[in-house]
Amino acid sequence: MEVTRTLAKFVVEHRYADIPEKVRHEAARSFLNWVGCAVGASRHETVENALAALSEFSGPREATVLGRGDKVDIMLAALLNGITSHTFDFDDTHLKTVIHPSGPVASAILALAERTPVRGDEFLHAFILGVEAECRIGNSVYPPHYDVGWHITGTAGVFGAAAAAGRLLGLSEQQMVWALGIAATQSSGLREMFGTMCKPFHPGNAARNGLLAALLAQRDFTSSSQGIEAKRGFANVLSTRFKPEEITKRLGETWEIALNTYKPFACGIVEHPAIDGCIQLRKNYNLKAEDIERVDLKVHPLVLELTGKKAPQVGLEGKFSVYHSCAVAIIHGAAGESQYSDEAVRDPRAVALRERVNATVEQGLHEDQVRVTVKLKNGQTLEQYIEHAVGSLDRPMSDGDLEAKFHGLAEGVLSRLETENLIRLCWDVAKLKDAGEVARASVAAAPADARKAS
Amino acid sequence: MEVTRTLAKFVVEHRYADIPEKVRHEAARSFLNWVGCAVGASRHETVENALAALSEFSGPREATVLGRGDKVDIMLAALLNGITSHTFDFDDTHLKTVIHPSGPVASAILALAERTPVRGDEFLHAFILGVEAECRIGNSVYPPHYDVGWHITGTAGVFGAAAAAGRLLGLSEQQMVWALGIAATQSSGLREMFGTMCKPFHPGNAARNGLLAALLAQRDFTSSSQGIEAKRGFANVLSTRFKPEEITKRLGETWEIALNTYKPFACGIVEHPAIDGCIQLRKNYNLKAEDIERVDLKVHPLVLELTGKKAPQVGLEGKFSVYHSCAVAIIHGAAGESQYSDEAVRDPRAVALRERVNATVEQGLHEDQVRVTVKLKNGQTLEQYIEHAVGSLDRPMSDGDLEAKFHGLAEGVLSRLETENLIRLCWDVAKLKDAGEVARASVAAAPADARKAS
Repeated sequence: MEVTRTLAKFVVEHRYADIPEKVRHEAARSFLNWVGCAVGASRHETVENALAALSEFSGPREATVLGRGDKVDIMLAALLNGITSHTFDFDDTHLKTVIHPSGPVASAILALAERTPVRGDEFLHAFILGVEAECRIGNSVYPPHYDVGWHITGTAGVFGAAAAAGRLLGLSEQQMVWALGIAATQSSGLREMFGTMCKPFHPGNAARNGLLAALLAQRDFTSSSQGIEAKRGFANVLSTRFKPEEITKRLGETWEIALNTYKPFACGIVEHPAIDGCIQLRKNYNLKAEDIERVDLKVHPLVLELTGKKAPQVGLEGKFSVYHSCAVAIIHGAAGESQYSDEAVRDPRAVALRERVNATVEQGLHEDQVRVTVKLKNGQTLEQYIEHAVGSLDRPMSDGDLEAKFHGLAEGVLSRLETENLIRLCWDVAKLKDAGEVARASVAAAPADARKAS
Repeated sequence: MEVTRTLAKFVVEHRYADIPEKVRHEAARSFLNWVGCAVGASRHETVENALAALSEFSGPREATVLGRGDKVDIMLAALLNGITSHTFDFDDTHLKTVIHPSGPVASAILALAERTPVRGDEFLHAFILGVEAECRIGNSVYPPHYDVGWHITGTAGVFGAAAAAGRLLGLSEQQMVWALGIAATQSSGLREMFGTMCKPFHPGNAARNGLLAALLAQRDFTSSSQGIEAKRGFANVLSTRFKPEEITKRLGETWEIALNTYKPFACGIVEHPAIDGCIQLRKNYNLKAEDIERVDLKVHPLVLELTGKKAPQVGLEGKFSVYHSCAVAIIHGAAGESQYSDEAVRDPRAVALRERVNATVEQGLHEDQVRVTVKLKNGQTLEQYIEHAVGSLDRPMSDGDLEAKFHGLAEGVLSRLETENLIRLCWDVAKLKDAGEVARASVAAAPADARKAS
């Protein structure tokens, strides 16, 4: 079975008309969420450091760093947008493999689309095909590949970026085979890097290198024709187990992007049920922090094990405190990146409320479940049971939820109007004459500093 | 044991004065050989395709593609010079690990030296330290790392490039730790790519990515501080065995570059004893092809197994024909790249002579040994026994041999005078005020086409 060639042929020959509307819509949701994450982290130290290091080496400044005025060459844009979209760890998740699929793929092709205008439907098609290649390759080696220490978003992502970019470049089947091979021989990214700037570097680097692979293949730079499946190819070298049929079976019949999920909250997934419960209580009962005597959580053991920090001092610690997370959920009705700033963690209202939050383990609860009980100062008791947290496959974020998340991320970067326009462009990406319009619309008309001052 | 930090500290703090003269001379030999290989392949299809794909994305054109008029940005120059230097598979070999050490390291720092002038002694020092890091990391995981399918020149090379570039950039110890970590998380390159353009892509990509790692670290882009030794770091993820002491023991007391070797002939090492024997007979007896009745070789079994092709039709097949190799050795006194062109393989003199070459196995001969017997038409018989082929650690190529090899490679790219000047600059690199001078001197004053016509 020629795995690499089968996949290459599929990516080269597939027709957009054969993608179900539901799948296209999920792709638009993924793209929207990706743009929001990239815009949100566009002023983070991680990308500032990368830009400081690399901007002076930029080639033709044809592509936008999302959310910023800077333009850089397309490979650098692919790197930087891949970095920002994963900086908050708030991007999408393909739960079967824990791949964050959009970063490597969208970062590569949006940059390319700014160089040579691409119709929106072709863009979305390439995006879907890239995610398909990436996630199927991930499926074929997961979990041993991940377990040994590979950051699968990097290692599989480079294939997705190469496939999607190669599709937009109009590669022949043989060139696509080479592109996948050049991707295979660049596949990299170690889990040891988690907790450092190199974690978001991985999807960025996958985007950069996948784009390089496609550009080289376009000029007949050759590689092995069995880069994925050969004895000394990707799968056998980077994994102790390989299921080639995960790549080749039912191609074009099932779509991995249909399984994509989005995080509603900017913290570990284990806290999400509790946050969800608090936000629902707030909404249903118009809950106010000052009316609350105490909050009691019944949780899965992992919640206390991973997020049991009672008195966080800085923003990052807040992400590991279910007490802080529930407090901001009740106060702000949200647990986005801005609820985990240093200021948010030190906010006296949040401090006062989280001291009244208690959490105990209830055996038998699933990781996705929680019981929240709020006792009010007036003696009333409110209860909320969560069966599946929002953002799970069973209870996906609604389109409206995704928009609200986007607004939270774009705050301070774009004006409300600019954000709304950008959201609309993301939903309508398949109808655009020029998909690169999305990138350009991610930049504020006035510099962010000026707006902050105003 | 903090392996990454120990190595980083060594690279940052080491003093050039503490490197023995013999080691410095070996480094100059390695550098000379590397420049020759890069110049020699500077018009090869592999680099032409890469340039066609990537030149238009170049940033500031500050660095030279060796042997060419093109200038490109430093990261692209690192990539392209790494590619050309390995295209003929004629570069240096660290026999303990089969790493080709110079490509990744020299390609990265020569590009950097063209951007910011560097004194020659500092340049040679960084080169030696980069090779040290690269080969020690290779030693720590070889052979299981190579056996499973990693092309170790790529996977270890990225560390060497990062270390050497980081040294020239004046990184602090912590920044060097990060640079090695950023290198670790980019470590890649599959043996499956052998026989395609991706093989020479590996040292080029290692140079490009190692340089990127150093530039990012210089701006405090963070990575793990145990990128090499952590449970989910380089060594444990990419190898089933790790000997950390190979990296840390006797640092500064032994030098891996002292173990470097150079190929005298542009073909598989198994043919080298026979070629060596023929060249010695030619020299000692002023041997002429037309005087020869027959040539008889007694060889190790592998010679016939790997290079037994009786009637090669194209250049590449000539490399797998010990008959052709011995014929050109007698006719030209050389077996360089130009003896393996399509024309050389079809040359009637070579065809006529190789039909008179016979080879049979002699049990008991070592791979490094051969017996050559030449019967002349006048009835005389000449014999030559080779105990160790030239180019082996036991009988290294002399400085003169390396110069002759360089001349062969540069033929058709540079004039004889230009070649002699470039050779002199390579020998004297440690004395140069500006090491980048070597790169600029690798380019012909007049375009190669003009010279060919003249």
